[in-house]
This record gives sequence, structure tokens and C-alpha cells, in this order.
Amino acid sequence: MADVFTDLGFAKLDISRKDRTGIAETIYCAGKTKEQLLEILRAFKDKNISVLGTRCSEDKAEFVQNSGLSVVYDACSKIIVLKASSGETMGGKIAICTGGTADLPVAEEAAKTAEFLGAEVIRCFDVGVAGLHRLLAKLEDIRQADVIIAVAGMEGALAGVIAGLVETPVIAVPTSVGYGASFSGLAPLLTMLNSCAEGISVVNIDNGFGAAVTACRILRRMKKNV
Amino acid sequence: MADVFTDLGFAKLDISRKDRTGIAETIYCAGKTKEQLLEILRAFKDKNISVLGTRCSEDKAEFVQNSGLSVVYDACSKIIVLKASSGETMGGKIAICTGGTADLPVAEEAAKTAEFLGAEVIRCFDVGVAGLHRLLAKLEDIRQADVIIAVAGMEGALAGVIAGLVETPVIAVPTSVGYGASFSGLAPLLTMLNSCAEGISVVNIDNGFGAAVTACRILRRMKKNV
Amino acid sequence: MADVFTDLGFAKLDISRKDRTGIAETIYCAGKTKEQLLEILRAFKDKNISVLGTRCSEDKAEFVQNSGLSVVYDACSKIIVLKASSGETMGGKIAICTGGTADLPVAEEAAKTAEFLGAEVIRCFDVGVAGLHRLLAKLEDIRQADVIIAVAGMEGALAGVIAGLVETPVIAVPTSVGYGASFSGLAPLLTMLNSCAEGISVVNIDNGFGAAVTACRILRRMKKNV
Amino acid sequence: MADVFTDLGFAKLDISRKDRTGIAETIYCAGKTKEQLLEILRAFKDKNISVLGTRCSEDKAEFVQNSGLSVVYDACSKIIVLKASSGETMGGKIAICTGGTADLPVAEEAAKTAEFLGAEVIRCFDVGVAGLHRLLAKLEDIRQADVIIAVAGMEGALAGVIAGLVETPVIAVPTSVGYGASFSGLAPLLTMLNSCAEGISVVNIDNGFGAAVTACRILRRMKKNV
Amino acid sequence: MADVFTDLGFAKLDISRKDRTGIAETIYCAGKTKEQLLEILRAFKDKNISVLGTRCSEDKAEFVQNSGLSVVYDACSKIIVLKASSGETMGGKIAICTGGTADLPVAEEAAKTAEFLGAEVIRCFDVGVAGLHRLLAKLEDIRQADVIIAVAGMEGALAGVIAGLVETPVIAVPTSVGYGASFSGLAPLLTMLNSCAEGISVVNIDNGFGAAVTACRILRRMKKNV
Amino acid sequence: MADVFTDLGFAKLDISRKDRTGIAETIYCAGKTKEQLLEILRAFKDKNISVLGTRCSEDKAEFVQNSGLSVVYDACSKIIVLKASSGETMGGKIAICTGGTADLPVAEEAAKTAEFLGAEVIRCFDVGVAGLHRLLAKLEDIRQADVIIAVAGMEGALAGVIAGLVETPVIAVPTSVGYGASFSGLAPLLTMLNSCAEGISVVNIDNGFGAAVTACRILRRMKKNV
Amino acid sequence: MADVFTDLGFAKLDISRKDRTGIAETIYCAGKTKEQLLEILRAFKDKNISVLGTRCSEDKAEFVQNSGLSVVYDACSKIIVLKASSGETMGGKIAICTGGTADLPVAEEAAKTAEFLGAEVIRCFDVGVAGLHRLLAKLEDIRQADVIIAVAGMEGALAGVIAGLVETPVIAVPTSVGYGASFSGLAPLLTMLNSCAEGISVVNIDNGFGAAVTACRILRRMKKNV
Amino acid sequence: MADVFTDLGFAKLDISRKDRTGIAETIYCAGKTKEQLLEILRAFKDKNISVLGTRCSEDKAEFVQNSGLSVVYDACSKIIVLKASSGETMGGKIAICTGGTADLPVAEEAAKTAEFLGAEVIRCFDVGVAGLHRLLAKLEDIRQADVIIAVAGMEGALAGVIAGLVETPVIAVPTSVGYGASFSGLAPLLTMLNSCAEGISVVNIDNGFGAAVTACRILRRMKKNV
Repeated sequence: MADVFTDLGFAKLDISRKDRTGIAETIYCAGKTKEQLLEILRAFKDKNISVLGTRCSEDKAEFVQNSGLSVVYDACSKIIVLKASSGETMGGKIAICTGGTADLPVAEEAAKTAEFLGAEVIRCFDVGVAGLHRLLAKLEDIRQADVIIAVAGMEGALAGVIAGLVETPVIAVPTSVGYGASFSGLAPLLTMLNSCAEGISVVNIDNGFGAAVTACRILRRMKKNV
Repeated sequence: MADVFTDLGFAKLDISRKDRTGIAETIYCAGKTKEQLLEILRAFKDKNISVLGTRCSEDKAEFVQNSGLSVVYDACSKIIVLKASSGETMGGKIAICTGGTADLPVAEEAAKTAEFLGAEVIRCFDVGVAGLHRLLAKLEDIRQADVIIAVAGMEGALAGVIAGLVETPVIAVPTSVGYGASFSGLAPLLTMLNSCAEGISVVNIDNGFGAAVTACRILRRMKKNV
Repeated sequence: MADVFTDLGFAKLDISRKDRTGIAETIYCAGKTKEQLLEILRAFKDKNISVLGTRCSEDKAEFVQNSGLSVVYDACSKIIVLKASSGETMGGKIAICTGGTADLPVAEEAAKTAEFLGAEVIRCFDVGVAGLHRLLAKLEDIRQADVIIAVAGMEGALAGVIAGLVETPVIAVPTSVGYGASFSGLAPLLTMLNSCAEGISVVNIDNGFGAAVTACRILRRMKKNV
Repeated sequence: MADVFTDLGFAKLDISRKDRTGIAETIYCAGKTKEQLLEILRAFKDKNISVLGTRCSEDKAEFVQNSGLSVVYDACSKIIVLKASSGETMGGKIAICTGGTADLPVAEEAAKTAEFLGAEVIRCFDVGVAGLHRLLAKLEDIRQADVIIAVAGMEGALAGVIAGLVETPVIAVPTSVGYGASFSGLAPLLTMLNSCAEGISVVNIDNGFGAAVTACRILRRMKKNV
Repeated sequence: MADVFTDLGFAKLDISRKDRTGIAETIYCAGKTKEQLLEILRAFKDKNISVLGTRCSEDKAEFVQNSGLSVVYDACSKIIVLKASSGETMGGKIAICTGGTADLPVAEEAAKTAEFLGAEVIRCFDVGVAGLHRLLAKLEDIRQADVIIAVAGMEGALAGVIAGLVETPVIAVPTSVGYGASFSGLAPLLTMLNSCAEGISVVNIDNGFGAAVTACRILRRMKKNV
Repeated sequence: MADVFTDLGFAKLDISRKDRTGIAETIYCAGKTKEQLLEILRAFKDKNISVLGTRCSEDKAEFVQNSGLSVVYDACSKIIVLKASSGETMGGKIAICTGGTADLPVAEEAAKTAEFLGAEVIRCFDVGVAGLHRLLAKLEDIRQADVIIAVAGMEGALAGVIAGLVETPVIAVPTSVGYGASFSGLAPLLTMLNSCAEGISVVNIDNGFGAAVTACRILRRMKKNV
Repeated sequence: MADVFTDLGFAKLDISRKDRTGIAETIYCAGKTKEQLLEILRAFKDKNISVLGTRCSEDKAEFVQNSGLSVVYDACSKIIVLKASSGETMGGKIAICTGGTADLPVAEEAAKTAEFLGAEVIRCFDVGVAGLHRLLAKLEDIRQADVIIAVAGMEGALAGVIAGLVETPVIAVPTSVGYGASFSGLAPLLTMLNSCAEGISVVNIDNGFGAAVTACRILRRMKKNV
Repeated sequence: MADVFTDLGFAKLDISRKDRTGIAETIYCAGKTKEQLLEILRAFKDKNISVLGTRCSEDKAEFVQNSGLSVVYDACSKIIVLKASSGETMGGKIAICTGGTADLPVAEEAAKTAEFLGAEVIRCFDVGVAGLHRLLAKLEDIRQADVIIAVAGMEGALAGVIAGLVETPVIAVPTSVGYGASFSGLAPLLTMLNSCAEGISVVNIDNGFGAAVTACRILRRMKKNV
């Protein structure tokens, strides 16, 4: 069993995940100390495995960078990447749409993750339904995608409106953007779950990462079936 | 003080309300026994005052009708009316839009109330955002209204999309239509409160009556200002 | 505009939906009277369009059947179908797994919908995580699917465990099966949204229909890309 | 389509909004970086369009001011304004009432927005229902308004009591003022949605801006109808 | 210890409660079978102890009455009484006010309980804040009470407005009267807990009984102190 | 793998559970049709395995009994048992305490389950903290148990008070007994989770069955260790 | 009307409150700037009226003290007092009990307020039900009070246990002390509202001030009745 | 009574707890000032009683250590210990499993508490169900324990999967690890309460301490029964 994970005591690195689920190991940095993060990254580097970390605060990223490990960090999406994906692409397109500018960090978490996993990303930002003509103007771009990721906070109506206009599967990401009765993203989460439009499924609030991985599973399956 | 309300013991009829707030007394039938409802209606009839009752179950309506009192009852909206408004009209138009067919009882509660209070109603039913072209096809009709009432359950995105397309004030009514994570109307209520579009205000879940009265207050003020 | 929908007053039938989104019109029967349902079904029949209705109570189905309209009704899933899909299949497989026997009505709603839309369904019922060996014994069957629909109430852990074992996209359907702190399906909904496993997206509580339509959008896209 | 919005990549400026909805573009500053805010303001300045930004923190305002752009900032309401409205007034009055002193920032957000859009504002602050005589003493002032905005936290009863005393439409704004079981404004939100008084509609918690825009839509419609 | 309670197996009758807390034993009938209720009442009758039962459904009351036990039942408040209090009065007054007619069952539960315990009750029904003049007209009656019980559903603002006008302690009872965002009484419960007026304390939703007992504890203490 | 479960299609009977977890298979009857229930019971009978079903409605029990299968049904706890445990006892004692009489069905679900699994049960009903002397009088009985199950609705304080008085592990079962702000058992659930007393763990609302099984796991472990 | 309140613009000081409700004006400092607080205190000083402020942060208190105004500040309860009550006492006793040491700030808010209003306070701290003997040891002290204030966080069972042991009215104050499923005081709030013991009424979470004022209203009424 | 607790005024030390409940006094440090904490620790030291404090922030620990009192502090679990347990062991094993690395602080709170109370701890960290093979690889270790503590955030499925694989009692600890719809630990709390697997009981969110004490009560009972 020693060959399916690496045991660091506080963490068991799932080094067989790519073989098992098609997606490489990724790290949720939020609940780990900077020392633990560094140790995990080093263990992956020793196995020569690319890895992507989400929710990595700037000071943790700096700590890792100062340690001499070669990583790329993006402050907007808070994503840290060890050794970019080795050039293989998945051969599919993901459109990532946002309701507003404030949804950018979540959208970029999705975009950076999808690109790390080898997908091509079409960005359509700030096309919320309060100004419908902005969305309609981008519709042709959006229709080229194999999967659409719709990122929206506040009322979260974007996913439903898009799904009513296209025949592509839509993955909806509610964001915590908003205030008052948005209750930290509960409002758009419920909106998206209750959408009358068909073809929508939903991930956790602010979970751009999860949306991208799900989209890539779909792309991988498409490729496999060809 | 005896002249500002009529005291029935279990109820104090606010017979001066029309003078004070411009809107006649109305009755919330839900929590009253059929005997109490009949006694209240008779007291208004004795004062020759028109009155509208909401959430009147069919058996209560039958009981009143069988008592010999002349009332009009609508089973869809569950509205009971004693002596229709004496012909005076308010001189304004209210568009009432619904997301789906299941929202009809709430929409009709609004429509019947608005008509009772003297407004003209434009009905635009089943124009939800999952099929945007249905709404866009009705846009010219909707733009003729002085106030729009947008009635929607499930995701409740209708109000926001309309408000982004017109310059009329929009009163949003969430409905309890839906299941699961709609949580009996909580989902569209939150959607409407968090709308990014401007010009929307919201009333209680399923409160078609309240939306209509608020709309009529606006119409009355418009008329007064002319 | 008359050619994109049929206006029945209380309902606007979206007869262009198949062209626009690739999925035929479907009917949410829950909030409609039996007379409205019949009128809608007749209108589709007149246009020679197949249609599927969800959440159709037994008495509504009987009313329709007694009217002479030829429909098929399934009491477990509460699905009513007018003229089955004209033989075209989508060429993909959907595995539908349930945690327990009580999740069957939701699972069958998904299965019947998927079959109506031309997909092949692999049923794996009662494979909840409390007896993991039941799931593991079915894993090879499940792996053959292009998309997995995981249906579970109570704790809802099934989706996450499956997603950790396969590389297929997983659509999770929480059900209202349970009592007490399941809060009518809130518990499995939250479980599924928070899953640590990757590749999961979630639809509304008890929304087997929505999961199936989303899965079919993925299958259609796969077919198109070939 | 290039003439209906300006595309900055991270934001699409809705420069046709005034023509479409009668209300100029406004900016929700909360989720934008100071650099993004500056770029947006400059784009509007280049088009010679007045614009108002809400929820602008003091440091963002300073950053903009230090950049040489001529804006006006109010620290209480957190509103930033680029080039005040060009002297046109809407010809209507809005009374803005608050339950307590702590509701001032929200009330001023409403007041500053209304004034920016050309309305006349009547301020009636600290007239909560715990000391009813304070409200009654101001009633004549309040009655002069075409629309009333009632701002209250804690129990939020102010809107209902006012609506029972006047015939003007009332827009209720719950605030997050309070502690414990106010649950960050949920308590007054529910109070206002459930008001027995007629003529009330509600906006999001702390959304003084939204209340003002809605009120101005009503005023504009009144003016148009004359 | 045998003398402080009577053990029926499924219930332990607290026959020493009056000595310990000054208030006789009372029975919550809701969760008991009719047979259990009868056995409990008989046990009290055997000890010659008066007892009051709340939430007694009509069929349970009938079952008890048909058994030959002499009890008094009130269908509005659902209160059943075995042998009325032996003529001793507490020498204090409780004003019971309601927002509307639909609050009557809860108000009568309070009134009947208070009368059973020997207090004098002043009833002021249907004096909600939407028609403030009705409350003001009754203010002198209300001021004569030693304790006020304010019963209100929907927005529940009654308690706060009364407490701001008098110097008497106010016990607030939220009711489940309402719909939609009243969430079965949550809205008035929160309103009352957050009241800005002083001198209010709150009991459970629909708990007229609890309010009356608390009021009587206050009256008893007042009497004792004289 | 065929030998670890029996596949009925709609259900997979976990016939190896007793070997794996020490506790026999049990059936959650609530979500199953009466036909499914009968088929499952028959399958166990064919394997000569005892089985206990929870939440079995009276009409399902009657259907099974009328089919000729020999089962024992208890209407209070809604438990159905096929062939009582074969006389082996576990050699430990469980005290089951309830706050009130209305908690009986849940307490009996626990008691019947524990007895089915071979434990001895000490019943202490109606010993809620509002009359503390009733609990104190039973303390010696309670102290004899190896595990205590504390069943309480409404405020749910019983578990914490007991745990502060004894050194035995306490399993707390919140019940849905109560009304208003008990929110169907949420109140006692939270009380029990937040208890300041040590040694308490909690199961789902109304889950007497789960408490009993957990208690029996503890007894079995104790026996094993001897 | 000028003589019933003093208008500072941002605040209307209710200088007639003592005449109207028997309790002097008090200030909720939390939502006011330090400048506003100072201006309000000065206005009261000019009228020679004593006033008590709650939730006054240390830096606001310092600002006021540095301005030369003579006030007393208590950092534990965060209460600021201008000119202590002029020696008149109300002639009654309030027992203030806490479940734990962490409830002290709330208990002291109650105690300081009660003393400001002229009541005598009996402090019984850290007598939570997890160690019942601590409470029982203090029972005689507690019984001497005319009103009991029970302050508790976490499970909040203290109020119910006390109310079952005495015949005095009990005002329960839930506190936000706790973590996890205490949900910032929701758990003890629900516990207290659902108490099976009689004679309890509840105020807002952490509202020691409100409990004290309510208790003093009771004491004042007792005194008046003598 | 003086000999059963030590009264410090703000705290009553329950020095008889070990005799009464078998577990020594412990201190919840979160709501106490550093001065109070020191005084409490000194009082225990004077009585020569070992004591463990939970949720002790680093600065409080430093304050105590700088005062000259000899204590041991662990920054990960935030546990402070005065004089380690005097060598007596309880003779049982507790396995502590976590879903992820971020659950470590809660797991260590449990581990340190269990070790303080004399139990032997088996640590199995980062064995969440998203990578099931990690858990299966550790199953033999886990099966050696007398009680299992399963610590997990996010979806919290770990407890149910373990309980389905073993026959040991499982105490589940939900953690606040996660974001969005985990709602600070509500999601895993509900998952664990609704688990279909048998033999699970649950403690408060992040309450590693409570899980350990409950586990030790079970171990103590086991030892006693031998």
C-alpha cells in the first residue's frame, strides 16, 4: 500500500490520484500552516509531480518562494502552482462568465485551475443580467465552449439566463459577493439550485476550483469518447 | 373616538382608513372563523363601505354567500369582495408579470386587488427568464405600465431582468412555488432582495395583495400630483 | 414572434426550446390545475411534439388519461409522457446510484427522464456508504458510464465517495429522505456541496429531473464533438 | 453593439443605462480594487458621464483623489461622486426617516443618492417607535413627500407605523444596526416584510442606495405622467 | 420522597409544585394520548387538586367529558380545566392586547390561564399598530393593569409600541399568525426580542399560557410584598 | 462478493453486517412501500436472520401481519420485529430517561431496540428538570446503568443535568416534542450539543434507535474487554 | 411639542421618557460616533438629567472623559454613567445569576443598570447546572429576590432549572458565550424560550441592560401598589 | 457545603467533580481574562489538583507562564495543563482519525485531553473519504481502539464510513474547516447527525475536548466493569 500515498504524519499525499480519477493531486492551503504547505510541496517535487494549491494567502506564498522552491503564485485567485502542467492539453474549451467585476477572484481561481489541467479558457467577465445586452453581445463566444462556468454573487441569476439561451452544460458558482440578505453567498446558491432553466448544476460558494475540475472531468470524458 | 373605528370586541373595524391612508379597509380572512368573517362583512355593509377580503377559503366564502350577503368570490385568487368599488378609477396602469403558470393565484390576488382599487391591469403570464424570448416579446406591453409587479417563485430572477430593461418601478413578489431548496419561497425572496438591477422593491412571499396596494399608492400619488 | 411560442394565456409554450437548447419542452405539473395540464398537453399534441411532465399526481394523470389523450404515467417517479421520443438515442450511458431504497422515486425521475431524452441508464440502487462493500461490488458497472448521477438523502455521503473512486463527472442529487436534522434534505445538500472529492456538482433537493437533463446535455455535447 | 457598453475587460461599463432605464450608471465599489475603481471612473469621465459609487472605503477614495481625478467623497455614507448631476431636478420630494442615530450611514447613502439623481430630500432622523411622540411631531413634514424611505434596524417597526399613518408609498430599508437576535439585520428585514400596514415594499439590508433609486424611478414616472 | 410526586409510570405528577413555586400543576396535553390525559386528570381529582390543561384537542376533551369526569373545555383556547380555582383571587390586573383578530386563540389561552390562577383580565383585542388610533383609544384601560401581555403575529410590533407608551412591564407573545416570511412566528419573535423600547420580555411563539403564568408570578410577588 | 449481500434490485440486504459491525441488519421502513418491506422481511426470514424495522406505520405492519409473516409490532415505538433475538444477552444495563410523557415514543424506540439487541433496560420516564426532585429521586436507579440515554424535547436540558450528576457516558436524544421556537427539535438538539456538562454525545432528533445501537456498541465492547 | 424632546438633528433626546415610562433615557452607544456621544451627554448634562450609556467602547469613554465631562466608566460591562442616580432607591431586590465566569460582562451590564435605576442587586455568579450543588448552595440567597435575572450561554439551561425551584419571576438572558453550534447565542436563546419550567420570559442575546430595565419596571410596579 | 466547591466570587471551582463524575475539573479559558485564569489555576495548585484548560490563547498562556506557575502549553491544540496526571492510566485505547490536515488542532485537543485523562491515543490523520484507500490502509490500527473519535470538516462523511466498517463506538466531531456552504461547521454537523451508519454519536463543532472526555467515560466504565 506504500506506493499509493506518501505519509507525512499530518498529511497523506494521494500520489495515485491522477491514475485513479484522472486529475492530479491539489492542495487546500487554507487550513495548513506555512511549514506544512512547504513540506507537502517539497514531497511532490521530490516525486516530480505537478501540483496546484488553492486559497494560498500571500504570506504563505512568500514563505514558500523564499524557501527556494520554484512556484508560481497569482494574488488575485490565490493559486500557487508547482511546475506547470507538462504541455499536454485536454482539447476542449471552457467559457467562464461572471456577473460582475467583484466575482473576478473566484472566476480566476476557476480559470487558472482549468488552464493548469490543460483546458482552453474563454473569459467573459461582467456580463450580469441587470444589463442583458452585455451578455447577448458575448453569446457567440460563449456558445463555442464545451462547458460553461457561470460565476455570480448577489442574486446569482446569470447561470439560469445563460442556460436558457444555450445547449451547453452549465456549472454554476455562487459567490459571496454582496451584503445583507445575500448571507455570504446563500442567496445566489439558492437561486442557482432553484433555476427553472435546465442543464445547470451547482458547486459550493466561491468554489471556482471545484467548478473547473468538474468541467475538466467532462472535457476528459469527451476526449476519451472520441 | 367612536367614529374612527367600529368595535366588534374581537375586531376593531378601521372605518376611517380610507380617509387616513387613501385605501379602503381590507380583511385578512385566514385567521378568522367563518362567523367572525360574516359579522365583519355585515358591519361594513351596514356602513355602506366596500371591502375586499384576501385568503378566503372556499368554505368560508360559501358560508358567507349562503347567509344571504351579496359578495363576489374568486376561487383562484381566494379573494372575496363586498360591493365592487363605485366606478371611480385611479387612472393608471399596472403590468403584472409571472415567471410561470403556477404563480397564477398570487398574480390574480394582485390583479383582483388592483382592479378593486380602480387600477387598470395588464396581464403578462408565464414569461420566466428560462425562455427569455417570451419576455422580450411582451416588453412593449410591459413598458406601457406605470408600475410593474413581477411575480415569480423558484429562482425568482424575473424581477431583476425586467428592471434592467425598463425605467418603471418594479415591485417584486416572491412565491412559494417550487420545492427543495426553494424553502417555501425563501430562495426567490433572497434573489429579489439581492438583485443587481435597480428600481426593485420586494413584498412578502405570496403577497400579491400587498404588491397591488403598494402599486396603487404610487398611482394615487401620481394622480394627485397632476 | 408567433412561431417561437404558443400563447395559452396562462401559459406560453416554449415550442422552440429544442432548437435553442437541444432539449424538448418539459412541464412542471405541480403548480398547475388538471385542466391547465390537459390543455397544455393537447397543445403539444397538436404540434406533434413529444413532452414529459414531472411531479404529476396520480389524480391529474388519471384525469388526463380519462380525457382520451394517449399518455404513459409512472406512479413511482410521478412522470407523465406524451408520445415517447421518436427512437433517436443519444449514444451515451448514465449510471444512476442511490444510497437507499427510499431514494427510488427521485432516482426513477432521473432514469425516466434520461431514457425519454434518449440516454441509456445503468441502475445501481441501495449502495449507500454505511455498507461500502455494496458500492465497491458495483464499481465496474458504474465506471462504464459517461456521467454518474448519485442520489442520496440523510447524510448524502454517496456522491463524494463515488467521485473519489472514478474519473467520471458526478451529478449529485440530495433527497428529502430522512427526518429530524436532515431538515427536508438540507443535510445531504450541504454534504454534497462541501464534498472534498473533486468532480461533483449538485442540483436541487429531489431534482432527479434536473440531474438527468444536465447529464444529457453533457452526453449531447460529447456526441457533437465526435 | 460597441456603442452600448465600454469594455474594460474586467468590467463592461453600461453607458447606455440612462437611456434604457432612466437612471445613470452607478458603481458598487466594495468588490473592486482601487486601481479598477480609478480606471472605471476615468472611463466615465472620458465619456463626460456623471457617476456615483457606493460603499467606497476611505482609502479607495483617497487613492482616487490623489490620482488627480476630481471627485466628491462623503465618509458617513461612503459615497463617491464624479461630477454632480448637471443641475436638472426631478421635481419631487423624498422623506427619509430613521429609527435611530445609528442608522445614519444608511440614511445618508439614500439621501446622497437621491440628491445626485435630482430629488429633494426631507431628513427626519431618530424618530423610532419607542418614543412615538417624536414621530408624530414630524408627521406633517413627512406627509409632504411623494415617497417615504423608512430606515430602521433592531426591531424595524418604523416602516409599518408610518405606513399606517400616511397615504404615501413607503420603501423600507432594514439596517444591520443591532446585536444578538437581530442577526445582522434579519430581524428588521422580516418585520418589514410582514408588516400589517399597507403600502410598504422592502429593499436589501443596509441598501439605502437601492431605496433611493427605486424612489427616484417613482418620481420620474410621476413627472412623465404630468 | 413519595409525598412530592405521584408516579403513574409514564408520568410523574408534580403534586408539590404549588408549595414550591406558588403555581399549581398544569398539563401540556399535546403529546399525550387521550387515555394518558384521562388517567392524569383522575389522579389529580383523587388528590382534590385543581389542574389546567393546555393544547387539548377537541376529541381529547370529548373523550374526557364522556368518561364522566367533570371538566370545563374552551374550544378557542383549547384549554381544559378540572375544578375551577377555589375562589381565591390574586388581587392584580393583567391587560391582554392583540394585534389582530387571528391572535385570539393565543390571547384566550393567556386569559383563561390567568383567570384560572386568580388574576383579573382586561381584554384589548385587535389594536395592532397599522391603525394606531385603535391602540391609543384603549391606552387608559391598558395603563390600569399591573402587567401587560402583548400578543401579535406577522410583524409583531405591538409590544414595542405599547412599552414605549406605558411604565408597566410588558410580556410579549409572538404568534404563528402570518405567512411567507413570518416563518411560523419567527418574524414577530425576532421583532420582540430586538425591540428598542424598554421593559419587554418575550415567551415562546404561541405561548399564551407561559405569558400568563409569568404575569401571575409577578402579581403574586406584588401581593406578597404588600 | 455474492455472499456479503442479497440483491433485491431496489435493495441490497447487508447480510454480513452482524459479522462486520457486531449489530444485525435493521430496516428503516419510512421510505419503503409496504410491498418492498414485505419482500425484505421475507428475504431475511429465508436466511433465518432476525431483523428489526423502525418507523413502521400501522398500516404497513398490518399488511405484513396479514401476509402471514410472523412479526411483533409495537404501535407506540412503531417498531416491527421479525423473530426476537435468540436469547443471547449482552450483559449490560442502559437507563433510558425522558423529560416528559410526550417523549415516550422515542424512548420506547430506544428501549425496544436495546432489548432486541440483548441489553437490559431501566426506564425512568417524566423526570424533566422543571421538577428536579423527580430526577433526584431516581438517581440511584440511573447510576446502576452502564450507559444512559437521555431523551428530551422542548428545552432539552435533561442530558446536561444528568451528566453533571453521574460518571456514566450519556447519549442525548433530542425530540421534536414542543412547538414554536423548538423548531421541530432544533432547540433541544442545540442545547444538547452545547452542554457544559461533560460526557454527553448526541444523535439525530427523535433517533431513539440510533441511541440504542450506539449504547449497545459500548456494552458489546465492555463485554469483549472483560 | 418642543418640551418633550430635544432635537440635535442626528438624534432626538427623549427627555420626557422618565415621566412617561418611569425609566430615564438611556443611550445605545454602539452605533454612534464619539463626537455624537459627547454631544448627547452634554445635552443631558445641560438639562441636569442623569443618563446611562451601554456598549460604550473604551476609546469612546476615554474621549468623553478627556473632554472634561464627569462620567463613570466600567470596562467589564462597558457602561458609562453621567451623574449617578440621586440617591432614591426603588426598594426591591434583583438576584443576578450566571452559568459561568464568561457571562460576567453581560451580568455586570444588568447589575450596573439595576443599581443605576435604584435596585439592590444580589450577585450569584458561576452557578451553572453542570455542577448543580453550586446552585443549590445559593438557593436561599436567590429566593430573597423579588425578580431573578438568569444569565447563561452555551446550553442556557440555568433559567429553567432556577424557575423550577422558586416562585419568583425569572428574566432569562442568553449570552453569546460558546462556540460552534451555539451559533452566537442562538442555542441558549432557544433553550430559554422552550423551557418547560414556568415563570420565565426572555430578552435578546447579551441584553443584560434590557433584563435589568424590565426587572426594575416590575419593582417599580410593586412599590406603587404598596 | 464549603467543602464541595471553592468560591472565588467570579468563579466557583468544582473541586468535588472528580469524586462525583470521575473526571477532574477542566477550564474553558476562552471567556476568562488572563488574570482570572491565573487565579483559578493558582487555586487548583493550592489544593494540589491537576487541571486542564482548553481554548487558551497564546498570550494568556504566556501570562500564566511568566507568573511563575509551572504549566505546559501546546499551541496547536491551545491546551494548557497544570501538573500532568499522576501517572495513573485508564487502560484503554482511543483512535483519533481526521479527514484532513486542517482538522489537526481539533484532533490534538482531543488527543491531549485523552492523554491527560490517562488514555492511550492512536493517531490516524488525513484519511478522508475522497481517497478511501488511505483509510482502508489504516483500518487494522483503528480496529484496535475501544472507542474511535472521527474528526472531519467540510462534508464530514468520515464518521459514517468508519462506523460502517468497524464494530467500535464512534464519537464524531464536526469541525469548522471549510468555507461557503459549510457554514462554519454546520454542514459536517448535519452529515454526522444524519449518518445511515450505526453506532455514531456527535459532539459540538470543534469540540475535540468533549469527544475525549466522553470517550474516557466509556473507558472508565469498561475498566470498572472488569
